[in-house]
Amino acid sequence: MNATKDGTVLGLDFGSDSVRAVVVRVVDGEELSSAVATYPRWAEGRFCDATRQQFRQHPSDYLEAMTTAVRDALAQLPSDKAPVIGIGVDTTGSSPLPVTADGTALALKDGFGTDPDAMCILWKDHTSVAEAKEINDLCHSGQFPDYTKYVGGIYSSEWYWAKILNVGRKNPTVFRAAANWVELCDWVPSVLSGVDDAAKIVRGCCAAGHKALFHPEFDGLPSRAWLQALDPCLGNLTTPLFSQTRTSDQVAGFLTSDWAGRFGLNAGIPIAVGAFDCHMGAVGAGIQPYSLVRVMGTSTCDILVAPPQEVKDTLVGGICGQVPDSVLPGYTGFEAGQSSFGDVFAWFERLLQWGHTGRGRSGSLLSELEKEAAALPPGAYGERALDWLNGRRTPDADQTVRAMLSGLHLGSTAPSIYRALIEATAFGSRAIVERFEEQGIPVKSVVAIGGIARKSDFISQVCADVMNRKVDVVQSDQACARGAAIFAATAAGAYEDIHAAKDAMHSPVEKSFEPDPVAHEAYNAIYADYQRMGAFANDIAGGHD
Amino acid sequence: MNATKDGTVLGLDFGSDSVRAVVVRVVDGEELSSAVATYPRWAEGRFCDATRQQFRQHPSDYLEAMTTAVRDALAQLPSDKAPVIGIGVDTTGSSPLPVTADGTALALKDGFGTDPDAMCILWKDHTSVAEAKEINDLCHSGQFPDYTKYVGGIYSSEWYWAKILNVGRKNPTVFRAAANWVELCDWVPSVLSGVDDAAKIVRGCCAAGHKALFHPEFDGLPSRAWLQALDPCLGNLTTPLFSQTRTSDQVAGFLTSDWAGRFGLNAGIPIAVGAFDCHMGAVGAGIQPYSLVRVMGTSTCDILVAPPQEVKDTLVGGICGQVPDSVLPGYTGFEAGQSSFGDVFAWFERLLQWGHTGRGRSGSLLSELEKEAAALPPGAYGERALDWLNGRRTPDADQTVRAMLSGLHLGSTAPSIYRALIEATAFGSRAIVERFEEQGIPVKSVVAIGGIARKSDFISQVCADVMNRKVDVVQSDQACARGAAIFAATAAGAYEDIHAAKDAMHSPVEKSFEPDPVAHEAYNAIYADYQRMGAFANDIAGGHD
Repeated sequence: MNATKDGTVLGLDFGSDSVRAVVVRVVDGEELSSAVATYPRWAEGRFCDATRQQFRQHPSDYLEAMTTAVRDALAQLPSDKAPVIGIGVDTTGSSPLPVTADGTALALKDGFGTDPDAMCILWKDHTSVAEAKEINDLCHSGQFPDYTKYVGGIYSSEWYWAKILNVGRKNPTVFRAAANWVELCDWVPSVLSGVDDAAKIVRGCCAAGHKALFHPEFDGLPSRAWLQALDPCLGNLTTPLFSQTRTSDQVAGFLTSDWAGRFGLNAGIPIAVGAFDCHMGAVGAGIQPYSLVRVMGTSTCDILVAPPQEVKDTLVGGICGQVPDSVLPGYTGFEAGQSSFGDVFAWFERLLQWGHTGRGRSGSLLSELEKEAAALPPGAYGERALDWLNGRRTPDADQTVRAMLSGLHLGSTAPSIYRALIEATAFGSRAIVERFEEQGIPVKSVVAIGGIARKSDFISQVCADVMNRKVDVVQSDQACARGAAIFAATAAGAYEDIHAAKDAMHSPVEKSFEPDPVAHEAYNAIYADYQRMGAFANDIAGGHD
Repeated sequence: MNATKDGTVLGLDFGSDSVRAVVVRVVDGEELSSAVATYPRWAEGRFCDATRQQFRQHPSDYLEAMTTAVRDALAQLPSDKAPVIGIGVDTTGSSPLPVTADGTALALKDGFGTDPDAMCILWKDHTSVAEAKEINDLCHSGQFPDYTKYVGGIYSSEWYWAKILNVGRKNPTVFRAAANWVELCDWVPSVLSGVDDAAKIVRGCCAAGHKALFHPEFDGLPSRAWLQALDPCLGNLTTPLFSQTRTSDQVAGFLTSDWAGRFGLNAGIPIAVGAFDCHMGAVGAGIQPYSLVRVMGTSTCDILVAPPQEVKDTLVGGICGQVPDSVLPGYTGFEAGQSSFGDVFAWFERLLQWGHTGRGRSGSLLSELEKEAAALPPGAYGERALDWLNGRRTPDADQTVRAMLSGLHLGSTAPSIYRALIEATAFGSRAIVERFEEQGIPVKSVVAIGGIARKSDFISQVCADVMNRKVDVVQSDQACARGAAIFAATAAGAYEDIHAAKDAMHSPVEKSFEPDPVAHEAYNAIYADYQRMGAFANDIAGGHD
């Protein structure tokens, strides 16, 4: 590679509801234009059943929305714009989808276009709770290596193998038609670069290590014998599903002329290896060793990197894994997070909107609520919440646990409950920071990116007060896409390595929230209630096994 | 007395939000007309602070609304109507108000018209939680007789002495200006009959026994020494505040010409001794020994009567008392209840209405919710509720405990939470029935009256399923007022005694709900969760002491 820094790069960020395309200047990371497109079928609620926590996305949603977003982003630029020299892709995850032998998403094939099991199983789909438990039991049985060793000791129903096993059992037709299973972050680059063989789809080390139990110590993925022991149906998979992974500073492939035509770009542009949104977002935010970068959106993903020589044999239990090179090549990447964050607030808004059709109040209702909630003291009128509306990702993944509200009384109002929900999400954040520190990984600073951090100073302040730590909020609204662009610039050869690209292109901190010691003191008592509620919710969930 | 059965009687039922006046035919109890009038200041939320659970009502609200309701009810009758021969009064309780030496409500005096402490302290006001605890501690200290013996062993912040003590401490001006404290059910008859001396206000045995610790074993009210020990301020009361009580089949006084003029009635009509709404409602519903008559409104009041010779020394702990003659002269009356029932649903509706001003959806929102909730299975999608939004009345009064919602997840909707709330209120009912039976008082049938029972077949069915008992719903919408009318007819001499009047005049059962054994089985498991939540809420409340 020998690209110059004169050009631009395109970062594509596939979120839970929409895809963002951002055109970023290579020399300094400035975001020149951006556009968002929602997933059309998803927006209609198709293929989902929230009561069963089934959340599926049709691959056409990604392709259509991506095309719209890229064209819109490019259209905003002047006609004499600098050329796009690289494309980077980040997505949600673990969001695997089945593909046929030629690498085509199964749901794009005749006969599978309306079968939810043939679609992408979104990260927050929890239909595989039972399968996750079986994976944990087998990993902890002593019969095989403990493959959960580097993913916090607990396999989650949000992840790759649990989802594959679930489909393998309940939908043999789909399962037999699938030649392989690919994370969305690997599938998008394979589509854009025209890969026509499932075996040749490039796998990023991020998804593989954090969700598919891929690790050098195991020589890659878990063994065929382990799959067979889990369920004979998995023994029918072509194994290993993949045996190599790459970091995102490398090229996955080059833009096909077909996609170049759809986007209005030149063919042959290098496409970086894909990774999860939070991982690339951490780089977009300029992650430093031992700073916890929190992507605060629908859920949170909390990312920390540390030099492997300092981590040595330290294993942090109950997080979403620690994987060599997963965030930033050369470092060990740690991932944690909360299964619902913005989703907590969106859920509450949906609740309050029930029966009030046609008001179109979405957005303003939450901002009005927040205004009144912010005027209340910590703990409001005694209301307490537990934020596990979508189960618990970390510490100690358990998707069977559920959320609670306590301390309710006739004087409890929408703002007082909303405040309790906000506090609960901050307590969930505190629990993650405490877990890292208890297990030997210091957290030296907290950096927030993502929609919630950008939109709500109040929520950032509550997080700072609860954690008794400064929270830095990054300027960019598109830190994940910016991170994807940084990897694209590196893969395209515009920078010597990812570190140089990160230093030049990351988004600066825009504002910082200092903790208020008085509020922190008040929150300490409320956090004790939160922990008691958590113990109760664990207990109730256990009772339902 | 020698009235005939040709006339009519007027039943006045003072509820939490409004007063109902019902004209009832003496011979058979038929309701000839009725009218409702809301309390105007209360409707504006004046003198209340829900966040502190302060609920006060201005006495003028009662007088104005009563006048309107009585005139409206009488105006619906033909001009050749039979004469009104008696008036009966029931009210909420314990709802005491301070009066001056001439029996006037203090808030009607110059200088006290806007002081909430000079008003009626509504049953559901819980500003006296600390005082109730002190009363319990003193009663259980061994220094004095255990005055809580006949009120379930626990004194509640909903009751008379706790409220008086609270005002005595925090508002000496009001306290010094008050010559006495009178339950609303005793005050209304005193007003209508023109009592001009606080010492001459007739006290019903119902309020006195269930709320003021009046019992023959103690020779009436607790001693002056006990009051003094509770707080020196109570030593300044003229004691005893009263020394005699009467049953409601007796005359408290006769309608003054002033009130006769306001109502458009003749002066001199006998007014029966007042009692609580649920007690008279039980009689309006034709209560039989060991049938539990449940007044299901804002809260529930659950009434049971048993022959004293069968009760003997049986003491039921944690209920609202067992008092000779309190419901039905000649029987021991037991009272229990839930501090919030309809209030649970009203609270949820208010929550959902937040930010949706001007829709005027009240009522229809709950009926739409109920329709969808009824289509869900028991336990909905795993949502669980604890109904203690206004503390817990029985079993084991504790107004510091609070409500909870658990099992919440992203698929939890307004109808699924509403269903959980309905189930929780039914579980609260089951806990009361179990308490009676555990402690030696069998519950042979369940009879429901009141707004919720009348309005919602679904809620009645859930109660039947949860309790595994048939629930009979009484026909009358005005069972409490009907009960007051039955007492009025007796006091006026139209019947030989209350039993004859009850048999002739009570409302029949309109519909019965048989328990579904399959649903009952499902509810048993959910009830276990309810009990676990209750234990947790008790624990959290204890932790906040």
